[in-house]
Amino acid sequence: MDIYNFGKELIVEAGKFIEMRMTREFQIDSKSNPNDLVTDVDRETEQFLYTKILERFPDHLIIGEEGHGQNIQDTKGVIWIVDPIDGTLNFVHQGENFAISIGVFIDGEPYCGLIYDCMKRDLYHAKYKNGAYLNEHALLPAENISLNQSLIAINPKRVLGEETRSPFFKIMAESRSVRSYGSAALEFAMLAKGQISALLFLKLYPWDYTAGVIITEELGFKTSDLYGRELPLLSSSSVISGNPKIHSEILEYFTGDKRLYEYHEKIHDS
Amino acid sequence: MDIYNFGKELIVEAGKFIEMRMTREFQIDSKSNPNDLVTDVDRETEQFLYTKILERFPDHLIIGEEGHGQNIQDTKGVIWIVDPIDGTLNFVHQGENFAISIGVFIDGEPYCGLIYDCMKRDLYHAKYKNGAYLNEHALLPAENISLNQSLIAINPKRVLGEETRSPFFKIMAESRSVRSYGSAALEFAMLAKGQISALLFLKLYPWDYTAGVIITEELGFKTSDLYGRELPLLSSSSVISGNPKIHSEILEYFTGDKRLYEYHEKIHDS
Repeated sequence: MDIYNFGKELIVEAGKFIEMRMTREFQIDSKSNPNDLVTDVDRETEQFLYTKILERFPDHLIIGEEGHGQNIQDTKGVIWIVDPIDGTLNFVHQGENFAISIGVFIDGEPYCGLIYDCMKRDLYHAKYKNGAYLNEHALLPAENISLNQSLIAINPKRVLGEETRSPFFKIMAESRSVRSYGSAALEFAMLAKGQISALLFLKLYPWDYTAGVIITEELGFKTSDLYGRELPLLSSSSVISGNPKIHSEILEYFTGDKRLYEYHEKIHDS
Repeated sequence: MDIYNFGKELIVEAGKFIEMRMTREFQIDSKSNPNDLVTDVDRETEQFLYTKILERFPDHLIIGEEGHGQNIQDTKGVIWIVDPIDGTLNFVHQGENFAISIGVFIDGEPYCGLIYDCMKRDLYHAKYKNGAYLNEHALLPAENISLNQSLIAINPKRVLGEETRSPFFKIMAESRSVRSYGSAALEFAMLAKGQISALLFLKLYPWDYTAGVIITEELGFKTSDLYGRELPLLSSSSVISGNPKIHSEILEYFTGDKRLYEYHEKIHDS
């Protein structure tokens, strides 16, 4: 079995692990701030993925949200970038609306992307240059809908700061409506299904976006940071993803705002 | 069959009508602005409900989002307050994440509330003083979680204005995180399930909130406008709904802001 098919089976297995594990009690801790939560289930699921991947492919590298691979300095070899539970707040408060996200890269080049909505048992998957799928069904190419006819995803709480609000608020005002679902991976999945036309984030990490970028780029969606630059694999980034038309429309809003640019460079140490 | 059981059967039937009707083409028009959409399916579903209710109960009154009952001036008799599709933008763009919402009042007193998530086939229902249910399962009473530990629902685009932003932004900043799902009825349903702890709207109409209020009040949630006043049945209102603790915490943010109060009274002509 190749890495792609192995990955698809593995992510579904990990989903079953979460579904079973969440019926028992688990501990909830906070990380960088009181609203940045992590649970035993996040940690155990990352360990589950880590063990299974290395059992099968001992020379692969793994970067995980909950701590694996922090010493990885370059993108040589096969790297699995893993978020065991994307949307931990939803996991804790809602018991659904979270996903496992896995992006695989070979020598820095995208190989495959996998997003698994465990509670709905929906697997979004794409192998580079081979199309993108929801379970067995091919997803349709991106439609070029403009911002003023689009639903877009933004977490408003993250862009309330004085430095950031102006362009984000103008984009929200111009959009048809704003959604906020609390899981970047599932927002990429909704983009892939055509349910929203763009998503914007001030700060994400590679485990939040790599799977989603690989899947949506297969469908013709474009992704970059707020300034049109390619997303990194080993450090945080802002993220704009959407059909080519809305992507370039949105980039315009960030051009020329020097204060935001300086703030942006400060919060993303590469 | 009493009104409650008739209503439960009727709303599921209307859900089937929508599910079938949406597989054929339908026309999309805009109402008050280019982002305020209505479709043939909204209008036909309201007509479906209207016809079935009057067939069975010729003397009942019906107020619907799409135009029925605009001449109703008082709350005497049995009034059905109906939103055939709450979340029309989601209906159009997502093909899911919308609901039928029905609140029934007898002489101005709540009688029953029904919210049907047609695509998930989930019926939220409550008869006054008889508990609230999701399908056959009793829903649990509201938990008193405070704002700083809560997910709350706000549509950020609706509160960007100079007059409104200050208290809403402070509330978002204090919350654990903000969600925006694009259907007030489904946000009431998520409140009823404990998946969010509060929802806030600057302007809704009775067809958006009456069913949700009846269902959530059965569980101990509190609802009022931004200034703690009871919600009207025949005119628009702002809405805060949440557990008693978060409800009173949120009300505090709106006290003493004279500019917002004046703006608020202007946008709600009663």
